[in-house]
Amino acid sequence: MTREQLTDVLRRDAALVEKALRTRTAWVDRLAPLANDEQIATLREAQDYSLMAGGKRIRPALVLEVCDALGGERESALPFACAVEMIHTYSLIHDDLPCMDNDDMRRGKPTSHKAFGEATAILAGDGLLTDAFSVAASHADEGKALAAVRVLASAAGSVGMVGGQIMDMQGESERLSLETLLQLHARKTGAIICAAVQMGAIAAGYTPQDEEWQALTTYAQSIGLAFQVVDDILDVTADPALLGKSKGKDSAENKTTFLTYYTIEDAREYARRLTEQAVEAVETIDPQGTLRALALYLAERVY
Amino acid sequence: MTREQLTDVLRRDAALVEKALRTRTAWVDRLAPLANDEQIATLREAQDYSLMAGGKRIRPALVLEVCDALGGERESALPFACAVEMIHTYSLIHDDLPCMDNDDMRRGKPTSHKAFGEATAILAGDGLLTDAFSVAASHADEGKALAAVRVLASAAGSVGMVGGQIMDMQGESERLSLETLLQLHARKTGAIICAAVQMGAIAAGYTPQDEEWQALTTYAQSIGLAFQVVDDILDVTADPALLGKSKGKDSAENKTTFLTYYTIEDAREYARRLTEQAVEAVETIDPQGTLRALALYLAERVY
Repeated sequence: MTREQLTDVLRRDAALVEKALRTRTAWVDRLAPLANDEQIATLREAQDYSLMAGGKRIRPALVLEVCDALGGERESALPFACAVEMIHTYSLIHDDLPCMDNDDMRRGKPTSHKAFGEATAILAGDGLLTDAFSVAASHADEGKALAAVRVLASAAGSVGMVGGQIMDMQGESERLSLETLLQLHARKTGAIICAAVQMGAIAAGYTPQDEEWQALTTYAQSIGLAFQVVDDILDVTADPALLGKSKGKDSAENKTTFLTYYTIEDAREYARRLTEQAVEAVETIDPQGTLRALALYLAERVY
Repeated sequence: MTREQLTDVLRRDAALVEKALRTRTAWVDRLAPLANDEQIATLREAQDYSLMAGGKRIRPALVLEVCDALGGERESALPFACAVEMIHTYSLIHDDLPCMDNDDMRRGKPTSHKAFGEATAILAGDGLLTDAFSVAASHADEGKALAAVRVLASAAGSVGMVGGQIMDMQGESERLSLETLLQLHARKTGAIICAAVQMGAIAAGYTPQDEEWQALTTYAQSIGLAFQVVDDILDVTADPALLGKSKGKDSAENKTTFLTYYTIEDAREYARRLTEQAVEAVETIDPQGTLRALALYLAERVY
């Protein structure tokens, strides 16, 4: 699959997901008797502001493309794709808060708390996180719905993403070992990428007992880590205008990154190797080459 | 059932739930491969600080007692009881934040953000909320697990508790109609009390199609509302030392309460009527009289 073809795939997937996200209210309301949207219009507005702010929709695309690669119907994976994007969005809203990363801008717009105030931003995030479970649980196949909820809750929870966030905060005041840094990223970003891939497999009817499950998990872990290594490289090498955030922020904050332990050249080689590992893991279950193209796309930002 | 007997029931239920809450890590970790608790010790400490701070454990007791009243095994409802208490605890942590109610003390101890800082408090809450779904989804009966996740997510999410919180914030700057005030409380506190009762029914094998489901929902809605009416009365009549918070806080903040629309005597009568409704609704499905005693207990704080 060429880069142009992948771009088309990502664009089509993003359109599918965004359309479904707009109807999430209907999914959630189907489960709830208290649906007077007028009363909670501010909450909806704040949630849509962040949820519809664009972004590459990589996580939901992984859900849809893994499902498709395994012979499932892309559309049947939409509840899981929406749920993972809702959780990703909540995590960005809470990460940007003054007491966390204190960021004023995100994707060229004021962050949620800048636009709506801190209280509404926190509640918008809490609501998106909670509703993500309503949406995942709404899948028509009850076995798949429960399997997805389990995967998603454990990836997003205290042992997963939230735990990674706590480790990240601690890493600001002390130097982390390389092993701890790897664990931090496995929790903070890796776990949700794994969950996306596994939910795609669940939608296609696969379980952890299938061989393909382990191959896809290796794929997810490798692209997640490669993505983070590339991020650390870009922080010191990229044009700030392209990066969309300040350059050198990590080293200015004396944060432990992969460049604490690797030269830029070695880090590039590490990202390359991880990407190869990812591609090899899914070689036999990637008929269109979409998963391969996605892995290369995520890592190529570095070159 | 006498008050003394109810006190014993509540004490026994609280002990069951607290023991189960201490092992929640094991439940969540069973679902997650990233279980190095050392790395996230701060997060665990902050979560336990709030989760183990006591409280009457009314919501989990409702789960257990409804399950028991319907002929189910109390212990089989423990994952749902723990999940509802984890969500209640997360909501208290986030509500206490400086940008929300800005409370320094809760149950005689500094609030979470006072003890651990704002960032850790927000993450402790995010983690408890997310883990609650892992815990509810861990129920051995997969059909019951999914039904409980659906009920809990919709009660806690944007149309439920989070939506009620947004309405509450708006109510601080404008006078709410009585109808809107009722909706606010139905969302903010009523939805989770309903979810507790419904999860007890789910644990006992009941579904929304059963007659008992509707009776229990009426029970939950009535005790939830009575509880809130009593809260508003206590805010102006109670001894602050017994109340555990400042008296007259609502009227000082010019907040819409039931006393905006009722005299104290009429509000007392309203709470009495709601409690009667609740007791009548469950008359035929309350063999020990526990649900009746619980309803009276919640409303009697007023007399």
